[in-house]
Amino acid sequence: MDSLSPEGGNGLFGRRSFLKGSVAGGAALLTAQAATGLERETWMQAPGGPMSPSGGPSSFEAHVKRDPIGSQPGTTGSGASRTPLQLLDGLITPSHLHFERHHSGIPDIDPAQHKLYVHGLVKRPLSFDLEALARYPMVSRIQFLECSGNSGAMIAPKPVAGSASSLHGLLSVSEWGGVPLSVLLDEAGISPEAKWIVADGADAAMMSRSVPLDKVLDDAIVALYQNGERLRPGNGYPMRLFLPGWEGNASVKWLRSIKITDQPAMTKDETSKYSDLGPDGVAELFTFPMGVKSVITSPSPGLTMKSAGWYQISGLAWSGVGKIRDVEVSVDGGRSWVKAQLDEHVLTKCATRFRAAWRWDGGPAVILSRAIDESGAIQPTRSSVLKDRSAGSFYHVNAIQAWQISASGEAENVYV
Amino acid sequence: MDSLSPEGGNGLFGRRSFLKGSVAGGAALLTAQAATGLERETWMQAPGGPMSPSGGPSSFEAHVKRDPIGSQPGTTGSGASRTPLQLLDGLITPSHLHFERHHSGIPDIDPAQHKLYVHGLVKRPLSFDLEALARYPMVSRIQFLECSGNSGAMIAPKPVAGSASSLHGLLSVSEWGGVPLSVLLDEAGISPEAKWIVADGADAAMMSRSVPLDKVLDDAIVALYQNGERLRPGNGYPMRLFLPGWEGNASVKWLRSIKITDQPAMTKDETSKYSDLGPDGVAELFTFPMGVKSVITSPSPGLTMKSAGWYQISGLAWSGVGKIRDVEVSVDGGRSWVKAQLDEHVLTKCATRFRAAWRWDGGPAVILSRAIDESGAIQPTRSSVLKDRSAGSFYHVNAIQAWQISASGEAENVYV
Repeated sequence: MDSLSPEGGNGLFGRRSFLKGSVAGGAALLTAQAATGLERETWMQAPGGPMSPSGGPSSFEAHVKRDPIGSQPGTTGSGASRTPLQLLDGLITPSHLHFERHHSGIPDIDPAQHKLYVHGLVKRPLSFDLEALARYPMVSRIQFLECSGNSGAMIAPKPVAGSASSLHGLLSVSEWGGVPLSVLLDEAGISPEAKWIVADGADAAMMSRSVPLDKVLDDAIVALYQNGERLRPGNGYPMRLFLPGWEGNASVKWLRSIKITDQPAMTKDETSKYSDLGPDGVAELFTFPMGVKSVITSPSPGLTMKSAGWYQISGLAWSGVGKIRDVEVSVDGGRSWVKAQLDEHVLTKCATRFRAAWRWDGGPAVILSRAIDESGAIQPTRSSVLKDRSAGSFYHVNAIQAWQISASGEAENVYV
Repeated sequence: MDSLSPEGGNGLFGRRSFLKGSVAGGAALLTAQAATGLERETWMQAPGGPMSPSGGPSSFEAHVKRDPIGSQPGTTGSGASRTPLQLLDGLITPSHLHFERHHSGIPDIDPAQHKLYVHGLVKRPLSFDLEALARYPMVSRIQFLECSGNSGAMIAPKPVAGSASSLHGLLSVSEWGGVPLSVLLDEAGISPEAKWIVADGADAAMMSRSVPLDKVLDDAIVALYQNGERLRPGNGYPMRLFLPGWEGNASVKWLRSIKITDQPAMTKDETSKYSDLGPDGVAELFTFPMGVKSVITSPSPGLTMKSAGWYQISGLAWSGVGKIRDVEVSVDGGRSWVKAQLDEHVLTKCATRFRAAWRWDGGPAVILSRAIDESGAIQPTRSSVLKDRSAGSFYHVNAIQAWQISASGEAENVYV
């Protein structure tokens, strides 16, 4: 690939040349002798470890973990932990690293005792235990979940020091499997005046959110499985609401009650919290869909480039309205952009992995990515995001993230 | 859905009626009082557990584990453990439950010490450490991995007692991410006479397999990531060969050496093992692709149906040549078949989840599934599989699995 010409300024190669030829990476030339006389490494000299009922990561990967963010002083179990995006690759978030956001900790629910109640404006109020739910048709899809507070630090007047994880790690991707909520509502029989549902969780905070019936009938599920197995406790075991593409908070965990109503309940979690303050200072409620967004996860803060040469730029792009159409990458602060290569699976309301090749000259550079979704929406700049809201309003920030690369190969959060 | 007519004999509803209406499951009717006066459960009366750096499954799911199969007497680390297919749903296998098949245990490899050597018929023999590999273009895809010995118990003259896991659990699905091997070979420069590669692992058994160069240049990768994170040790940490759709053994784990050759090496793992004995008793070598196959995971042995009524039939179908086109299900021992509903993601060389609804009348029944892939290949019957091989030859068995359902709702392995 050394013979190819960059597609963008400052040595950037995108979709057009990606995989077209080899990249002169850090491979070391072997002597013929070294290649034929491979010595047995220590771990090849005795049988290794045994089979196990459940296997964990290598001890050399102990640094790959979530960052639990402290609770408010004097409270228990309210806070968040973030997915270490900069240490992962691909599409799926392993379930043990899925972000957490709890309002009163993780309840330890006995699935044999737990029931889902469907009531309110229905012909037949019903309850479902796990065994009952298992008799209904199920579906499964790989989709993202993002907290609407994700990336909220970007409203700070000066860039805060942080990593892809601490700034944008309230985003994870799982395969979510369960029963379409529409099937259960059909079973209960919705009254003609029904327009909303109110979903309550079985945690001590009794998280409660109102969701328009249209969304429920479109693609909401009562999720029972995450990445092939039962939900993890931190993600709603034994069941949660899952609303593809919508702010995570509305996908109520530990789902216990679905009340069908003709209006929203105006709970504390949709009025005092999880509402956006518009430019006129008036709260905008029920702003559910997550905007089109992307972030470069490598290189990014904490991943130092040790010398000039070839690097792969890689990141995630997602949109709450559908599929990602394109991701553009710049390594000259936004003066020139090239289209990134997208990994094979480009799924609806799911994160898509993008990649580009970069021949870094060893000098300072500003790298950024912007996503375009299938509706044609383009990820906005930070200034355009700020223009549309009051100071301090930090939900639903989907601004373009810029990383400043220093001559020493370190990345940091900057505004461009 | 009680008003719909079954599509097949014995109360079976497939793709045509799946999700078309509600299924009268085991929902319980609530009194108005019960619905409005929901009492707080024990776990709602105090804050729950804290955020964590890495979260595990619920303690109520401790039974969801692999079944480690014992080693040969006097040996260490040779054997297998199987994915508990009947306890999972969806597409992805969580990495801690991915099947294992080791020939001399799991080496504990220090990734900073590990190198991949590319040598033999190349212009420039090269070595790559993890840092070097990270500079090359990567790809990721969700695909199955299946041991060619999977389902081998079906050659037994009488049906052996077993579960979906113990009979067919040497099959798992992951997102595999890494560098196309073709890119690394391009970097080394393949000589014109090259026709094969020989891949060696860094385990004590030094697993070694020969792979035709055509496959390598088509879609082989050096996998570094599994389900978004670094490979698990039991799956080749820090790197493995991954050959989509081909028998698992050839996707050499703990990959250490790729030697480019003009002929296969005829290693013990491709001659004494992992070769098929044809009907004439002559060994057929290098029979890599896994055939079109499916298995019903629910209901299946161990999952007892407690009473007559509606059930979801669910299972996995896969093919080493491409996508699944159709899965057909029968609940009358193969007299009538209906097309199952496929989950949204039907991916190439990947397992696909299929589902159908069944109104079980509480009587004995024989349930089976058969898959058809995009090449038109149809999953064969057991007798047709046996006809093409010598007695005792147990690799690459992809016969139709039948489960006998008893009047007490229990399932067991039968031949039809």
